[in-house]
Amino acid sequence: MAEADLIGVLRAALGPAASALGSRLSLGIGDDAACLEWVGGELVVSVDAQVQGSHFDLRWLSLQDVGYRSLQAAASDLAAMAAEPVAAVAQLTLPRGFTRRRLAALAAGQARASEELGCPVIGGNLSRGGELSVVTTVIGRARRPLRRAGARPGDRLWLFGEVGLARAGLLLLSRGLARGDHAARLAVAAWRCPRAQLEAGLALRGAHAAIDVSDGLAGDAGQLAAQSGVRLVLSRAALQGALPGALTRLAARLGESALDLALTGGEDYALLVAAPPKWRAPGGQEVGRVEAGAGAWLDDGARQRRLSGGFDPFVGARE
Amino acid sequence: MAEADLIGVLRAALGPAASALGSRLSLGIGDDAACLEWVGGELVVSVDAQVQGSHFDLRWLSLQDVGYRSLQAAASDLAAMAAEPVAAVAQLTLPRGFTRRRLAALAAGQARASEELGCPVIGGNLSRGGELSVVTTVIGRARRPLRRAGARPGDRLWLFGEVGLARAGLLLLSRGLARGDHAARLAVAAWRCPRAQLEAGLALRGAHAAIDVSDGLAGDAGQLAAQSGVRLVLSRAALQGALPGALTRLAARLGESALDLALTGGEDYALLVAAPPKWRAPGGQEVGRVEAGAGAWLDDGARQRRLSGGFDPFVGARE
Repeated sequence: MAEADLIGVLRAALGPAASALGSRLSLGIGDDAACLEWVGGELVVSVDAQVQGSHFDLRWLSLQDVGYRSLQAAASDLAAMAAEPVAAVAQLTLPRGFTRRRLAALAAGQARASEELGCPVIGGNLSRGGELSVVTTVIGRARRPLRRAGARPGDRLWLFGEVGLARAGLLLLSRGLARGDHAARLAVAAWRCPRAQLEAGLALRGAHAAIDVSDGLAGDAGQLAAQSGVRLVLSRAALQGALPGALTRLAARLGESALDLALTGGEDYALLVAAPPKWRAPGGQEVGRVEAGAGAWLDDGARQRRLSGGFDPFVGARE
Repeated sequence: MAEADLIGVLRAALGPAASALGSRLSLGIGDDAACLEWVGGELVVSVDAQVQGSHFDLRWLSLQDVGYRSLQAAASDLAAMAAEPVAAVAQLTLPRGFTRRRLAALAAGQARASEELGCPVIGGNLSRGGELSVVTTVIGRARRPLRRAGARPGDRLWLFGEVGLARAGLLLLSRGLARGDHAARLAVAAWRCPRAQLEAGLALRGAHAAIDVSDGLAGDAGQLAAQSGVRLVLSRAALQGALPGALTRLAARLGESALDLALTGGEDYALLVAAPPKWRAPGGQEVGRVEAGAGAWLDDGARQRRLSGGFDPFVGARE
């Protein structure tokens, strides 16, 4: 049972009531965010969770980091919609024994991210629970939100932000190899304190489609392909050229392929964008093209192989 | 360490960034919802969680009920702000082994509530976690949101909706006494399927302050008193008169005081409202008055006793 199936279940159950909104609901369940027509533009709403044990492990992450990344991860969905953040609310579920001091550390991380993002946390809710979790809802606005559907044959694919480095950071931490050099520090920071690509998102005018790369480039490219009804072809050479130098060095140390880390790593909070051939935006790296067809593919010049999905936390769940 | 202390920690950490919104942030951390000035009225945002083990126990609640009450509980905060719901997003954290069929049941409950409330669930997020939780963010709008601060000496107190019955229902279930008569069925339904007082909320024009009664009338009256800087005096006789007949009968069966169930029960999702003397609204029951001073008090005609707080899940947490 894949996440996409579960989303289908939710869409079937919840869609009919949402249809009451008519054309005011410009985008419902299944994209990076939901969009509502509103006076003066569109209201863009997204929610993201950081759950202890699933999304983070406090051996490798401080509570400040948890707070920081919870807001950045949520804001990343706004970036992918070409939306500007307005404000956020946060649900904090705290286990027994979670002290005032620990809460202050968590909130300090949220505060730092909220200042960097220009996205204040204006309210929320506190609950008790068995495991620590932070659920952040971000509200943004956009003149024309950019969806996952919209990529067209002939478009080029652009990447904003780095992929693979966060996964390398997590592997370094979990294998006790995180000490040391600049490359390792970069990778650990990429995993601990990701940054939503808001600036890049706001510069996407004229692009056709975008997705937030959080579950691995391969899987998210597959999502973009499916929702646009096209075939996405990533160029191996272009992608290799776009990888951060630190990733190449660390991959060797970890005994991993840099390209695999980039394709399947996840937690990058980069943006994958489809745009017409002459489109350009600062900071973007061209990594492929859109064709007629289906699926996400990797082209090594000689042949293309189909990419399988990225991280899906629901695969393997019992039916 | 009480919840109010924890909210203070959050306000201190997160307030400075929120101040960047200036007067556009008309209401921040600490009320039933946060409010942002928006074109055409105020945007009212609130979040609420239902966490397995803390808020519900699947021995006594179906997954449909969990979905239903998660949206109703969140919408109750909109009711207390005199806001009209626009839409909701839901974060679902699912434990391993949570099947597609169980998800469909949960979503069916959300769908039923969303239709009753006119509040479609337009998006959300799925995560894995150790315990089932539903975190619902509701977005509403209001011309003039009604806050917790604003009650003035001389005001009368009004109650909309029933208090105590939900607690009686939970006690019946947990003591295995839930079979049988109409009163028991009413109480169990009050606990399983609470209804946000949206209609009442939208009729509060002219009132001075309101709070959603979710943690017990005594505690929530104390919140309203503290945030308004006044003394709230509940009349024992008026409150007794306002109690549902079923509650009186069930209290006897449970060996509890009906008044105590009403004051400290929680999960009622009623509204407590302060309004000027001549104010009236359909369905409201007058239960007391506002005086100069501090705290929430119960007046039995001869004397007044100060009410202690209602349910606070954080009292007893280690520092």
